[in-house]
Amino acid sequence: MIKVGICGFGYWGPTLYRAFSANPAFRVTAIADCNPALQAKARELSPASTVYGDGQELIDSSDVDAVAIATPVSTHFPLALRALMRGQHVLVEKPLCASVEEGRELVAVAERTRRTLMVDHTYLFHGAVRKLKELKVAGVLGKITYYDSLRVNLGLFQSDVNVLWDLAPHDYSIMDYILEEQPVHVEATGYCHVNSHLPDIAYITLHYRSHIIAHLNLSWISPVKARRIALGGTGQMVIWDDLTADEKLKVYNSGIDFHSPDERTILIPGYRIGDIHSPRLPSREPLAEAVEHFRRVVTGQEAPIADGRFGLRVVDLLERTQRALDLSLGRIAGLGAPTATARTA
Amino acid sequence: MIKVGICGFGYWGPTLYRAFSANPAFRVTAIADCNPALQAKARELSPASTVYGDGQELIDSSDVDAVAIATPVSTHFPLALRALMRGQHVLVEKPLCASVEEGRELVAVAERTRRTLMVDHTYLFHGAVRKLKELKVAGVLGKITYYDSLRVNLGLFQSDVNVLWDLAPHDYSIMDYILEEQPVHVEATGYCHVNSHLPDIAYITLHYRSHIIAHLNLSWISPVKARRIALGGTGQMVIWDDLTADEKLKVYNSGIDFHSPDERTILIPGYRIGDIHSPRLPSREPLAEAVEHFRRVVTGQEAPIADGRFGLRVVDLLERTQRALDLSLGRIAGLGAPTATARTA
Amino acid sequence: MIKVGICGFGYWGPTLYRAFSANPAFRVTAIADCNPALQAKARELSPASTVYGDGQELIDSSDVDAVAIATPVSTHFPLALRALMRGQHVLVEKPLCASVEEGRELVAVAERTRRTLMVDHTYLFHGAVRKLKELKVAGVLGKITYYDSLRVNLGLFQSDVNVLWDLAPHDYSIMDYILEEQPVHVEATGYCHVNSHLPDIAYITLHYRSHIIAHLNLSWISPVKARRIALGGTGQMVIWDDLTADEKLKVYNSGIDFHSPDERTILIPGYRIGDIHSPRLPSREPLAEAVEHFRRVVTGQEAPIADGRFGLRVVDLLERTQRALDLSLGRIAGLGAPTATARTA
Amino acid sequence: MIKVGICGFGYWGPTLYRAFSANPAFRVTAIADCNPALQAKARELSPASTVYGDGQELIDSSDVDAVAIATPVSTHFPLALRALMRGQHVLVEKPLCASVEEGRELVAVAERTRRTLMVDHTYLFHGAVRKLKELKVAGVLGKITYYDSLRVNLGLFQSDVNVLWDLAPHDYSIMDYILEEQPVHVEATGYCHVNSHLPDIAYITLHYRSHIIAHLNLSWISPVKARRIALGGTGQMVIWDDLTADEKLKVYNSGIDFHSPDERTILIPGYRIGDIHSPRLPSREPLAEAVEHFRRVVTGQEAPIADGRFGLRVVDLLERTQRALDLSLGRIAGLGAPTATARTA
Repeated sequence: MIKVGICGFGYWGPTLYRAFSANPAFRVTAIADCNPALQAKARELSPASTVYGDGQELIDSSDVDAVAIATPVSTHFPLALRALMRGQHVLVEKPLCASVEEGRELVAVAERTRRTLMVDHTYLFHGAVRKLKELKVAGVLGKITYYDSLRVNLGLFQSDVNVLWDLAPHDYSIMDYILEEQPVHVEATGYCHVNSHLPDIAYITLHYRSHIIAHLNLSWISPVKARRIALGGTGQMVIWDDLTADEKLKVYNSGIDFHSPDERTILIPGYRIGDIHSPRLPSREPLAEAVEHFRRVVTGQEAPIADGRFGLRVVDLLERTQRALDLSLGRIAGLGAPTATARTA
Repeated sequence: MIKVGICGFGYWGPTLYRAFSANPAFRVTAIADCNPALQAKARELSPASTVYGDGQELIDSSDVDAVAIATPVSTHFPLALRALMRGQHVLVEKPLCASVEEGRELVAVAERTRRTLMVDHTYLFHGAVRKLKELKVAGVLGKITYYDSLRVNLGLFQSDVNVLWDLAPHDYSIMDYILEEQPVHVEATGYCHVNSHLPDIAYITLHYRSHIIAHLNLSWISPVKARRIALGGTGQMVIWDDLTADEKLKVYNSGIDFHSPDERTILIPGYRIGDIHSPRLPSREPLAEAVEHFRRVVTGQEAPIADGRFGLRVVDLLERTQRALDLSLGRIAGLGAPTATARTA
Repeated sequence: MIKVGICGFGYWGPTLYRAFSANPAFRVTAIADCNPALQAKARELSPASTVYGDGQELIDSSDVDAVAIATPVSTHFPLALRALMRGQHVLVEKPLCASVEEGRELVAVAERTRRTLMVDHTYLFHGAVRKLKELKVAGVLGKITYYDSLRVNLGLFQSDVNVLWDLAPHDYSIMDYILEEQPVHVEATGYCHVNSHLPDIAYITLHYRSHIIAHLNLSWISPVKARRIALGGTGQMVIWDDLTADEKLKVYNSGIDFHSPDERTILIPGYRIGDIHSPRLPSREPLAEAVEHFRRVVTGQEAPIADGRFGLRVVDLLERTQRALDLSLGRIAGLGAPTATARTA
Repeated sequence: MIKVGICGFGYWGPTLYRAFSANPAFRVTAIADCNPALQAKARELSPASTVYGDGQELIDSSDVDAVAIATPVSTHFPLALRALMRGQHVLVEKPLCASVEEGRELVAVAERTRRTLMVDHTYLFHGAVRKLKELKVAGVLGKITYYDSLRVNLGLFQSDVNVLWDLAPHDYSIMDYILEEQPVHVEATGYCHVNSHLPDIAYITLHYRSHIIAHLNLSWISPVKARRIALGGTGQMVIWDDLTADEKLKVYNSGIDFHSPDERTILIPGYRIGDIHSPRLPSREPLAEAVEHFRRVVTGQEAPIADGRFGLRVVDLLERTQRALDLSLGRIAGLGAPTATARTA
């Protein structure tokens, strides 16, 4: 039985509580939140847990084997660090932490203490992402040519992060997992409509050495929610619409001829439009899979999919993108538009 | 009765032929194409027309009052110039021409000869665009905050233009018509997957002095066709999906609070999700409207919606975007990616 | 505080448990199920409740003020009867009971004991049904002309009921609530593909004195789930698709001219296709509304929407439909098709 | 070169004209319509044709090899009969004629004169129907269990036919082609909302000896158009939505276990939800295929798919359905509802 403490009981904490409770290998014995109303909620939902007013206190005082950290991003680093130092395994919400510097230290400490440091990039346990990886590995997609993500919704503004740090970690983790490659060049722009300095729209383009181009359209001010990812390959192409009930993933046996041998002549390529196949995805909940994976990692049965190094790569890419975004927003500001510089928060 | 000659009888020429034939004010009396097969097609479809092997010949030899130019973009300039010089009215396919320099000369000549120079930006006659304009003018949308276009399909590669010059003119004309403002800053990137030097994917972001941000996602290598434009305002927001049978336009009475007065505090804005209204759009065909508008312009009854100056602004924006795209592609090439520089064609 | 006992802890019982627990006016103090595994589940989910192996025992032994009955239909009658006799209020799952005879007795006993007998026709608390009623009452729809329901899915076979008794109660309660009229003629047919005698497909047509025609297409062997109701009126028409995320309800301002005065001439009616309006529906969960309504009924603050008489009318219509279905299936059997007669269970 | 005359130039005539003109084996030389405006339209569209004011006159006076009959249903019989007698091949719009009696005579005369009598059931040339047939023949669907059609739209009222004779011929021809079996029992009901005696809503259920159940939901007063056919089998199931742009046909690898061996026990069947496959359908236009098929039949290269006997079976089923519909409407009328009896027209 692995004893777990949950730090942060706001939006995601109760969900983590339910997921750990549903796995017989874990028992939640401690919960921490600085908000008294959420402490009360924790007591009601989990009468057997000790409730703390502070994550540090939970880490220091309780005898948990592992902590799950679902607090604001800025507190990930101190909490994860303390827990690792005390010999606890750590499952931390995405993103791992607020900077590359912090991330490097966490990775080093985790390796030194030989504790598990896992980032809860839940999408990596989503049936659609697994299927995408499977199709890529099987060679069905051919050479990947592009990744295109539309990830927009209305109004989940946060004081903690801008739209980039809120939404891009999903794509960045999926891309790292599937493409297994880091971009060589990052371009970003956007706009701060609601809070000057805190972008609520961001357009990001990433270029890869292997000639993949990736694009993210992120927004908090869209009247409809959309979660639509297109993954193009020279063999087949896939569209994953996460908001449809059935047929989330459609594999198009469609394609075009690529790159003429002689670069000076212009190729009018043939193209092929074929069948569409929508594979049945496993119905198990991604978070349940993530928790079970955490168990197997903690008990040494499995290598972690999203360990500290993985989480650090995502943070590194977020930082690089933030710099590109700042540059663009600064340029726009110089032209008379009102936004001075972007801030993470 | 206005006698019309049609230059170019490939993809769009026969469509123009049908549109002019269906309007009782026009009679098509001459058709030109350099391709013998298309000449034969013209003779079969329009036995009463004289068929020429060359647009210049048609303009010089026939006694038409107006010409419609549906040839490759690079030939728009010489043909339109010749026709205007000979006192003919001109309806030219979008884009007006291949460069700002050409466009300026055409505008000057048209004004000097007092002939109509109209660009066939057919979307300006689409019920959805008219409704968008109407909603904007009526103030229903509030202040416009963003324009976001997804315009992708599979494989309509052309030797003549890249994906920017093929697809962006649609958005650029719609944006000019609705926003009545030119962007102050243009960012663009993309990739050349099929023909090195000829981008088939382009991501474009435009920034406006009035704080509008516009974004275009253009691609020739998407497995599904999409034509989806979102127009956000502080009042209401609209999504126009041109490929659905009914309800192409949906007006969302949804919104969020904008810009805190004190820029240093972070605002967690309230938001409102309201009813959705899908106005009935007129069923008349846009091209028929465009042809009828051309008639009224030629006969002095109406001012042109897309005159030479309008078409020139679109070409100017295309050129600016092409320069931004070249810059980005050059930068990527320097990083080891294979694409050297973009070309229009 | 109203003490509630829940009889039956299979599919719907835990949902009722959560709904009562979320309402501060209620406390679940007793749960009964004959299945030991479900008893264990009840103990885990509700440690404070006494768990019984039988609903009768719960009713007899616990001191609950009210019982919620979520057991198989055949047991609704004895359990509800016993609870009413012991002075308990009753919320019973749909349908009220298995026959009109049973229903009449329950209604009589409830009226004699002055206890609340309410049927959990949850759809009556669905925002879409409320809006339909509102539109009808406001006269926006004009005179209702038809009700058309497609209610199909794959494989939720039950040993307890056939497809008619499983799915039709939803429509019958909605129709009673909105149309406020009982059909004068019932036609039904169907087929028993899986269990001979237990129809898994049923087609039902109901005729009303006010010239409404209602039709239900019910199936357990459809590869996709559908919940689509069309309600036609001489003014406007509505389509309610319960499985879409947004825009569940669409109001079409479309119509046709009705009935020529002279019945011998044939009228080619004009028709009008207008805007489509999708009203925002309240997001509160229907079951939470039902439980709150039950509270207000029990405490005398509100008249019940679906009382015993309402539930009895639904059962009466189910019986009439079953007879029509039996007749049709008998006729088909006589023709050499294998299905002899239908059974409820 | 086969010379063709077209009788009737209203809705479908010009479409037939274009289809025959596009096939190099045919030349349209004569067109007839009693409406002067449509005669003028015929002259404009086809200057080379002789235009008649009457189909009989066309048949008697012109030297056509074949006639295509697109006049009101009541005139199909005399025109087709006359043409066959004069040795002309006949392509007649669906349905073949207005009664079984007429149909029998046409079949007899066509066989005696050895002329082609083909009914234009265009759907038989639709890629989706061909694919359905292919899947059925290949055994992929297993044993067919049901056919379920939703065929509704707004307002295409006709003075000539009721909703049954307008819409059911589509399904009846598809069912005959795919199921290759005639129903043993027909049930029908409906309602006359607009013209008393002329049903505008019809619900039809057909029972087959092989245990297939077929159902049609037909309406002229639906606010949205729907063309959705579900075909269930013990192996796989198919849904064909003819109004979607892509993926008209979806094949569901989903199923349930059928019929328990012991009819007295109730089977809770297992079910399987699998992948969905959407085959690419050929893009050729069905009417072009039908015209080419007519050519091959006329020239003896191919046996007709929808010959007179086929068309007669469809008319026979329409008559049987009309009788069932009359019976039901009569019964309703007796209950106080206003509709006396249905009429075909």
